[in-house]
Order: sequence, then structure tokens, then C-alpha cells
Amino acid sequence: MKTLQLQDILDAKSRISPFINTTPIVSSSILNDWLGHDIYFKAEGLQKVGAFKARGACNTIAWLIENNKKPKHIVANSSGNHSQAVAWAAKMFQIPATIYMPEYASKIKIQATRSYGATVVLCKTRDIVDAQVAEASAKEGVYWIPPYNHEQVISGQGTAVYEAITEIGDVDAIVAPCGGGGLLSGSVIAAKGLLPNVKVIGAEPKNANDASLSLQKNEIQRLGAKPNTLADGAMTMSVGALTFEYLKRLDAFFEITEEEIVYWTQWLTHLLKLRIEPTSAMSMEAAKQWLQKQQTKKKVLIVLSGGNIDQETTLKIWEKDYLLKNPSM
Amino acid sequence: MKTLQLQDILDAKSRISPFINTTPIVSSSILNDWLGHDIYFKAEGLQKVGAFKARGACNTIAWLIENNKKPKHIVANSSGNHSQAVAWAAKMFQIPATIYMPEYASKIKIQATRSYGATVVLCKTRDIVDAQVAEASAKEGVYWIPPYNHEQVISGQGTAVYEAITEIGDVDAIVAPCGGGGLLSGSVIAAKGLLPNVKVIGAEPKNANDASLSLQKNEIQRLGAKPNTLADGAMTMSVGALTFEYLKRLDAFFEITEEEIVYWTQWLTHLLKLRIEPTSAMSMEAAKQWLQKQQTKKKVLIVLSGGNIDQETTLKIWEKDYLLKNPSM
Repeated sequence: MKTLQLQDILDAKSRISPFINTTPIVSSSILNDWLGHDIYFKAEGLQKVGAFKARGACNTIAWLIENNKKPKHIVANSSGNHSQAVAWAAKMFQIPATIYMPEYASKIKIQATRSYGATVVLCKTRDIVDAQVAEASAKEGVYWIPPYNHEQVISGQGTAVYEAITEIGDVDAIVAPCGGGGLLSGSVIAAKGLLPNVKVIGAEPKNANDASLSLQKNEIQRLGAKPNTLADGAMTMSVGALTFEYLKRLDAFFEITEEEIVYWTQWLTHLLKLRIEPTSAMSMEAAKQWLQKQQTKKKVLIVLSGGNIDQETTLKIWEKDYLLKNPSM
Repeated sequence: MKTLQLQDILDAKSRISPFINTTPIVSSSILNDWLGHDIYFKAEGLQKVGAFKARGACNTIAWLIENNKKPKHIVANSSGNHSQAVAWAAKMFQIPATIYMPEYASKIKIQATRSYGATVVLCKTRDIVDAQVAEASAKEGVYWIPPYNHEQVISGQGTAVYEAITEIGDVDAIVAPCGGGGLLSGSVIAAKGLLPNVKVIGAEPKNANDASLSLQKNEIQRLGAKPNTLADGAMTMSVGALTFEYLKRLDAFFEITEEEIVYWTQWLTHLLKLRIEPTSAMSMEAAKQWLQKQQTKKKVLIVLSGGNIDQETTLKIWEKDYLLKNPSM
């Protein structure tokens, strides 16, 4: 197992550049006034398929083709944005794709995955999903793109932070959410490669705190049951063996409550005028908690991971009104 | 009363350029596939104060200063985005502002108006609001910026369409929502000045169809009571004497139902990953109805007027799930 370096992110960036969006960086002057710090948001909701996941999926297929290993068929397993990302990338490279998804996956994500031309196989449980994708991938010519525990997926996800630093220059800290750890791993590699003194910070739901516990115990911990959190991008049962090695290089890690998730989902939506996934909003609370311990004004980059939310989740987010209480330190 | 020309829009554009955002134009390839036409969206939700209204307010004050008529105090009356726009622009030019708003205005818009440093006076009814602003404006050194019926307000609003055509070139049609008619008036002047053959199309809630009736009867009609519509930017009781003259130059006008408003608010939010006001979503339904009568593929520009929505309205928008039924012609 090689250790990924900044060069792997650079290679990924040049590989995927013709296909993905260089997403904008946005900020809110009023939020910066209220907090007394400069916060920059990398808006990956405006990425292809509405999430950073397009980067890793695209990089993996482009890397296979570059190495003369273009598969005849691609398979993937996910309940979320990775499904759409693989379906989108496979279609672009004209490779048939089959995506295994649990029946409880959001209807809108199933619908979007199909709309990119992939065959969707719905399975009763996540265990069946994982068994079926493993079986399918054993066939000759079939390639399985896992959601995070894969070097080219990680390298692709790291391009978001690489782009951001290239655009805005030095920052004091970078915050990203943790599901399986692919985005954070890529972010650590890119950030520490470019800026040796930068702090890289992770955020996870308190109700799905397997990565936090894993880092505390220095051993991968697995959730016992499907967690109860609005941050559906962070419901992963455990991080991967590969991503765990990069997560160990994080400088801080925060567990975020459901109320904090809803608060920042509402406020970031309101201030930035963007569709903000609850998973993305966690990073803002982590940034705030980190900033509360700082003595001087800081410049922070937050990766807004995506903007895919179904109607049911939207209703839950907006059930109570948090917009009447301004953010403050 | 002079007739505004393209030159007035150009003057406004150079006047306000240092202060406002040149907002991005976005599109959705999947929506274009589904409809068989090319739709471009001018994202004015990403404008200062989250709405195109910043343009008109900024242009009016900058024009006063340019003509050595800098007021000592600015007043305005509005229940919505115009309040925030005047408060923001007045603060920028360091002029004290008092904004008269009805008590029933959205709390978030009152809060935002105050956060820009304006004094907000809440009045029981809209009639009292209008009486108080008239009284206040009679004092020496006080200037009243009305929400739409003003040449410099109209010229400022027209800069959005001017920017868009400059960026994307020729289009077949331009669609914008109608409240008091300021945005549509400015859009007509800019569009017909640049592209003599372009169609300019208006959209209004069926439940607040005063402009539609006014155009049919060729005489300004006034709503009898506060209308019941989610499109709060289009609740204006009547268009203005000035804006009505420009509205007469529209090529088509559509009345949009509440269900159509909710449908497109959900879908544009989902596809574009932007915060979309119900008022903005009306234009998409009008575009669709116009496109249904066309024989060839068209290029359409839609002005997304803003992205300010309170929690209560957000809940109403997402009450039912419209995302399961794809847009189609």
C-alpha cells in the first residue's frame, strides 16, 4: 500500500479537469462580521451530480482508461451521492454501469442514478447490496468502484481542496465532513502537501460517531445499527482501512449534534443562497467550535460537500425556525 | 415623462458596477434534455441582499450623488426585498435610512433590513406604511426611493438582463416575474434595445393577477385585497403608471397557479442547487407554456429574481413532494 502524495492529487486534477466543474468559492460578509473571522466555502453542491463524489468516480475511470484497463462494465454500491457519481461518470466514458442500492435509499437519488442511464438494482438491506456488488465484481471485465476506500477515489476527492487553495491561497484551517473518510483523506493529502502548517479538521454527527471513536481508540470502530442522523452523507458504518490512515493525520475532530446540523443547514442556505446538504453544514459548526479556541483572526476553508436533499428531509430541516437567532461566537 | 432607452441601462450599469455582483448564469443539462430547449438562468439570488432589488436601489442613490443631490436621509416603504436593498445601498453610501414596513412582513426581512443599519418602523397596515413614508419624504433633505415606479429604479433593474445578454448573446425569449413591474420594465428596455426580435414575457400569480388584467383592459387594475400567494415578491396591489407603459411592450403574459409555483420552486432548487424564491419559479412555468407553442428549438433566458425565503414559507413549499414527477413538455 503506497502513501498518496500531493502529486497524486495533481494527477487526478489534470485527469478530471475536462469533465468536472471548477466549483466557485463563496462567502458571506455578514457571517464574517458576526464571527470575526474569514470563512470561505467551496460549493461542491454546484459540482456535477450535485456533490464532490463526481471527482472520485471520474478520476477512477479516467485512471483505468489511462492505464489501458478500460472495464467492460462498472458496478458500485451506495445509498447516496456515490451512486449518481458513478452512473454519471460511466455514462460519460460510455461504459455500462449497474448500481446496487438499498430499497430505503432516497427516491430522488435512485431516480437520478437511473436518469444517468445506469441499471439500478434495489436490495432489501445494505448487507445484500454489499454481497451483490462483490459477486458482480468477480466477473471478468467488471470493475467495482467503492465509495471511499480506494486510492483513485481519494485522489479525486482531494482535488476540491487543491482547487480551493490554488484560488484563495494560504488558509489557517480546512474543515470537511466525515462519512467513509474519502473527502477528508484527499483533503489532508492536498492541504498538507500545499500548506505544511494548515490545520485539517473533521466533522461527524454525534449520532454516527464511528470515525471519532476510531481515532480515540486508534482502531476502526463500527456502528452497531443504522444511525439516526439528518446528515445522510455521513451514515457510513465505518471508515476504511485506507482512509483511516489519512484520518490519523487530522488536527481536530468534532462530533456535531442534530440541532447544530439543522441550525447551520438553515443558516448557510439563507446566507449563501445555495442548496446545502445537512452533511455539509456539520463543517460550519466544527469550524465555529475550533475558532472559539483561537486567539487571533483566522482564515478558514469549508468544503460544502453537496446539495442533494429529498422533500422529506427538507421538511425535517425546516420544521423549526432557527433563522431568528443570528450566528455568533 | 421621458421614455427610457438602452442608454439609461448602460448608464446604470456603469454607475452600479463597483458595488453589485455580476451574478452567474447557470443551467441544467438534464432539464434542457427533458424540455428540448436551452434554458439559461440569471441567478439574482446571488446578488447583494439576495435579490435583483439591490440594482435599482444602488442606481438611484448613485444617480442622486452623480447629480449633486445626495440626500441627508433616505426613506422607503416595502414589505420585502426592496427594504433590504435600500438599507444596504444607503449604508454603503453612508446615508441614514428609515424603512417603513408592515408588521406582517417576514421577520427575516425585517431582521436583515435592520442588520444593514437602517431604522425600521413597523406599521399596522400597508396603508399606514404608505402614508408614513409620504409624510417623512416631505421633509427637506429626505429622499424617497419607491419600490418600482421610478426611472432610476427601473434602469437599475434592467442591468440584470443587459449583463445576461452581454454574456450569452442572442436569445429567443426572456422571462421575468411581475410584481410592481420594475424588473420587467427594465428587462424590456434592455432586451429590446439589444435584440430587436426578442420576445419578452411576464409571469404573475393567478391569485394576484392585477398586471394581467391591467394589460387586458389597457388600464391599471388594483387588487381588492391582499392576495393569497406564495410568490410574495408579486403581491403588489397594482403596477405603477410608469411601469405600465413598459409592460404594454411585453409579447406574452402568463398567470401561474400556486401548484405550478410550488412545483418549479422545488424543481429549480433541486436542479440548480440554489435557493429559489417562489416568485422566481413562476418564470419557468411561463417559459414552459410559451415553449409549448413553439415549433423549433429555442434559447430562453429566465431571470431568477431572488432567494430570500423565511422558514414558514419554506415549509409550505416542501409540504408535498413534487420531485417524483420529472419536468417534461
